[in-house]
Amino acid sequence: MTPPTLRDVHHDGSARFVAPGPYELGGTVALRVLVPDLADGRDGVERLVLRSLRDGEPHLAPARRGARTAGGRWWHVDMRSTNPVMSYRFFLGGPDGAYRWLNAEGVHGRDTSDGADFLLRIDRSPPAWVADQVAYQVFPDRFARSSPDTVPPAWAVEAAWDEPVIGSGPGVERQWYGGDLDGVVARLDHVVELGAGVLYLTPVFEGRSNHRYDAVTFDRVDPALGGDDALRRLIAAAHERGLRVLGDLTTNHTGREHDWFLAAQADPGAPEAAFYRFRDHPGDYVSWLDVPSLPKLDHRSEELRARLYRGEGSVVARWIEAGLDGWRIDVANMTGRLGADDLAHEVAREIRATMHAVDPDAWLLAEHGHDAAADLTGDGWDGTMDYQGFTRPLWVWLNGGAPGAGAGAVEHGLHFLGLPVDIPVLGADEVTRTMREVHAAMPWAAFAASTMHLDSHDTPRFRTVAGGGVKGGVDLAGAGRDLHLLGLALQMTMPGVPSVFAGDEIGLTGTNGEHARTPFPWDRDAWDAATWEAYRTWVALRRDSVALRRGGLRWAHVGVDSLTFVREHAEQRLLVHVARADGEEVRLPLALLGGATPVVREGAATRIEGDAVVLPAVRGAHVWELALDEGWNETENAEEAP
Amino acid sequence: MTPPTLRDVHHDGSARFVAPGPYELGGTVALRVLVPDLADGRDGVERLVLRSLRDGEPHLAPARRGARTAGGRWWHVDMRSTNPVMSYRFFLGGPDGAYRWLNAEGVHGRDTSDGADFLLRIDRSPPAWVADQVAYQVFPDRFARSSPDTVPPAWAVEAAWDEPVIGSGPGVERQWYGGDLDGVVARLDHVVELGAGVLYLTPVFEGRSNHRYDAVTFDRVDPALGGDDALRRLIAAAHERGLRVLGDLTTNHTGREHDWFLAAQADPGAPEAAFYRFRDHPGDYVSWLDVPSLPKLDHRSEELRARLYRGEGSVVARWIEAGLDGWRIDVANMTGRLGADDLAHEVAREIRATMHAVDPDAWLLAEHGHDAAADLTGDGWDGTMDYQGFTRPLWVWLNGGAPGAGAGAVEHGLHFLGLPVDIPVLGADEVTRTMREVHAAMPWAAFAASTMHLDSHDTPRFRTVAGGGVKGGVDLAGAGRDLHLLGLALQMTMPGVPSVFAGDEIGLTGTNGEHARTPFPWDRDAWDAATWEAYRTWVALRRDSVALRRGGLRWAHVGVDSLTFVREHAEQRLLVHVARADGEEVRLPLALLGGATPVVREGAATRIEGDAVVLPAVRGAHVWELALDEGWNETENAEEAP
Repeated sequence: MTPPTLRDVHHDGSARFVAPGPYELGGTVALRVLVPDLADGRDGVERLVLRSLRDGEPHLAPARRGARTAGGRWWHVDMRSTNPVMSYRFFLGGPDGAYRWLNAEGVHGRDTSDGADFLLRIDRSPPAWVADQVAYQVFPDRFARSSPDTVPPAWAVEAAWDEPVIGSGPGVERQWYGGDLDGVVARLDHVVELGAGVLYLTPVFEGRSNHRYDAVTFDRVDPALGGDDALRRLIAAAHERGLRVLGDLTTNHTGREHDWFLAAQADPGAPEAAFYRFRDHPGDYVSWLDVPSLPKLDHRSEELRARLYRGEGSVVARWIEAGLDGWRIDVANMTGRLGADDLAHEVAREIRATMHAVDPDAWLLAEHGHDAAADLTGDGWDGTMDYQGFTRPLWVWLNGGAPGAGAGAVEHGLHFLGLPVDIPVLGADEVTRTMREVHAAMPWAAFAASTMHLDSHDTPRFRTVAGGGVKGGVDLAGAGRDLHLLGLALQMTMPGVPSVFAGDEIGLTGTNGEHARTPFPWDRDAWDAATWEAYRTWVALRRDSVALRRGGLRWAHVGVDSLTFVREHAEQRLLVHVARADGEEVRLPLALLGGATPVVREGAATRIEGDAVVLPAVRGAHVWELALDEGWNETENAEEAP
Repeated sequence: MTPPTLRDVHHDGSARFVAPGPYELGGTVALRVLVPDLADGRDGVERLVLRSLRDGEPHLAPARRGARTAGGRWWHVDMRSTNPVMSYRFFLGGPDGAYRWLNAEGVHGRDTSDGADFLLRIDRSPPAWVADQVAYQVFPDRFARSSPDTVPPAWAVEAAWDEPVIGSGPGVERQWYGGDLDGVVARLDHVVELGAGVLYLTPVFEGRSNHRYDAVTFDRVDPALGGDDALRRLIAAAHERGLRVLGDLTTNHTGREHDWFLAAQADPGAPEAAFYRFRDHPGDYVSWLDVPSLPKLDHRSEELRARLYRGEGSVVARWIEAGLDGWRIDVANMTGRLGADDLAHEVAREIRATMHAVDPDAWLLAEHGHDAAADLTGDGWDGTMDYQGFTRPLWVWLNGGAPGAGAGAVEHGLHFLGLPVDIPVLGADEVTRTMREVHAAMPWAAFAASTMHLDSHDTPRFRTVAGGGVKGGVDLAGAGRDLHLLGLALQMTMPGVPSVFAGDEIGLTGTNGEHARTPFPWDRDAWDAATWEAYRTWVALRRDSVALRRGGLRWAHVGVDSLTFVREHAEQRLLVHVARADGEEVRLPLALLGGATPVVREGAATRIEGDAVVLPAVRGAHVWELALDEGWNETENAEEAP
């Protein structure tokens, strides 16, 4: 993979390049390709040919030259949508018989495998509203408490709201702050003020821990959170404010005290006994990562499927009926997978079908801690929590060891999301390779319906990763802010659904997932005001910019300390430049950007030098508006037509 | 992908790195990794950790330092084989928290997707004998005719043996030379003299064309080929000489005059009507690439499955019982795929199961004209005809436009295997990237059980690709020989099963697949003697060298005009260097090659200069034997043990 430039021939799955669906099996899909002019003004592409797989066999269809546009030319070709997932790439024929290929990773001067072909799902797509969202993740025990009088559950050890979180060791799971759903209702204005549109709640079913991933039932909301009625109140209040609510369902396992597991252990002949995998009934059973409190579900059981996600009356259906706007599925990567059995895709398909029977617009998001591409062909999960394609690359580029960390930089000693190593520091060239590789393996629609996290309840806070936090007794709460906000800028300007873990927006820190679950300090004096201001600015920019929400992604320049890309939509074109350190000067051809001076939307102005736009070579995040280009929708070549 | 070197940390699926099976689900597999010394003699790897997916979740297992070996150190780790296909890679922890990843494409200084993980199938593997073979492909109508008196079939237009082949246009499919199976029997000594071990016959069932991919039955061998008895005689004669015989079955379609299709057309209620997909019975039906004479089979029909490949009595079973040693499946990439239905993996699994019930040692080879990796997870096809990972890269490196083509170089004007372009010329750096990418996506066992073709009955002859042939009335039969034989050298020294299309070994030419189906000229005066001699030499080297048959593949150097690799096995280590032109000097560290002067096996001697082995910088193919290294099987670190 060579570093991409603005002169690369380009296609992606956004509406500028793929006519929006719905599509029909056996119909056609209009595709477009942008061929920028080369430096010498020639057109390096003499022939452009679509190669798509039809029933497993490559088929070639020549593209037609379309209209000229800013610094380039559009090409058009109709693809026959012969199969549910279309796999395609483009042949770029040049002078003297030379050719290149354009696939989802970029342009290659050699033959490629089919592994990075563009992918387009024909018969299904994620709900359209998803791409327009910013999500806000709430860990219910730690967000807001509606009353000091709530009675703690039997397992809980109550803590005062301002007591430090136990980050590891004994007591982690029992430390109970009493946050509840009516507390969330009372603080919804904060979510609205931030500008988020989706409220993602980690589990609310009754469990035996503060995280509740050890459900004892999927039939009722934990009474300590306010019970079913509180959830209904929260959904109603959220919907009233135009917020959607995403639930969290654990399909891989239950808690050891789940009704089903108790029935299963009590009687090997009970139907529930087949919901789990006993090596030796009742004491020896398969559990999540061998944690005995989390027995693994066995999706070979038809009865389990019926109760959990098959049709009306199932858990999945009932809570969507109750008003949830979708599900985040916990440990989706392991769900249905055990030894010789791999039912993961079947399970995902069934959950989706059931959900959509109630609400065709519900969102199905899969938790995958790593590369989810093989599970994102589009008939099951809509998208994933994109740790591999977003969070990890971002951390590698913007952690406390990075050049821009400045005086506050420290070795934070955090292990890198499960790897036995501190987070390394790499240049933008390397981290964008990872991004391109991971995202190339999934349909654009899945990429766009995945969530982008700077962090989550399962990771250290990004503020700490970026160099902030407490280290050796020194309070570094202010340190790391700059890199944190550069990460925020990327989160709010890249494709995918930005997901903010409650507290990120006020600069909270945390050294691991547990430690990061800080009770939200509602006293604004405890907030990092500059961070809060930046969040409101960037979220608003996101919400107000159709190019950021629905545009394509075209890399303009990738250096070491800076990366630059264009987000383009029929109605808006934005140029984004993020530099982690001063000094890397980036010059882009003015003609290729539309020929007019870019207009500042956020950050500093550019400088024009002759034919080039010179971006500010200083640490920071910058967004400019580009002139709209034309011709993308004109399928006839006006110049060449008779 | 950076170009690989001998200093790269290495692992592959060969027996030096993965303890040979059979494996057990839930058991362990011993893995080894080779960490060569860096130039400064330090060990760049402080920690080596296996990352494997268990039920979809990454799991880390630290490796142990093992014994030293020539210029490096072995590391060892046991992998729990939790799932039928294990996906794994290695974390290479260096000094100062830096790390790299080693996956099947090589070493990466950044995080990767899972897409190029090493893949190991636990519960099944290709037959062990396959890796030891050289195959010889015979197109029955064109190999040898047992009698001038054979009666031509009704469709045929008889041609004399020395009449030119019609390469395109009318008459191509009807031109009939009368080659038959007893003719093959009479010429088996030629196959033995060449040194091949597998005779691969294109279809022998009765058809309505000289290629017989339009079968009218799968129940009997074409009488014009000698009928069932002739096939039995051929199998017996082949087995007597130690040759195995591979049949060719078209599972994607039949001929329009197939018994089944006639029955289907005659009666929409006939069971056979469900074997095909009628849009409008009887005249409008789905066919292969819309060729009406080849109606496509519909594998949703259980009755079709029963007749074709389900269990005893099926076509697949009966001909294996009759003595075939395996099947090559025609158009395997499209078999079972049509619109919304994708039954390809199911079909492959059933064919394999049926075949193995009769002969557990039978080989199942899939025709895929392109990237087959997604179909090679190991429960169906054993391997593929590796056009994408071998033939195409080779053609790009060694066609008539390449630097080494010399005076005979011409623009041959051949389209590149279906692409609308002459074959391009690229350097070894680019073509090996393609090879690495394609092969990384399949298990090593599938790579090793795939066939490597310089050409086949579906392509121009490689001799013509390499610059030989007739062009503009000029006979270039001798031209192209040098590049042809360099291709041969690569074919005989790389992993996979070399497959020679009858006639390649005597320098036959042909401008497309049809034109390449030349009747074999048995008069030795018509042979290119130097080519025949080279084939016997290289095939013998292959057959005699366990490292070439079963060794791993470690790239030592990749330039533009030359490529260099090591094939290593416990009992033998060979260094292979192929240069298409003079002038590229390659120096390898003597210590990393084992510290002893490499011994010439084929080609010229190396030169030692200080610590370096200098390979001859001249066009040619060279093979040297290296000293055996040690320690690969010692799991304890002798130096560090107390």
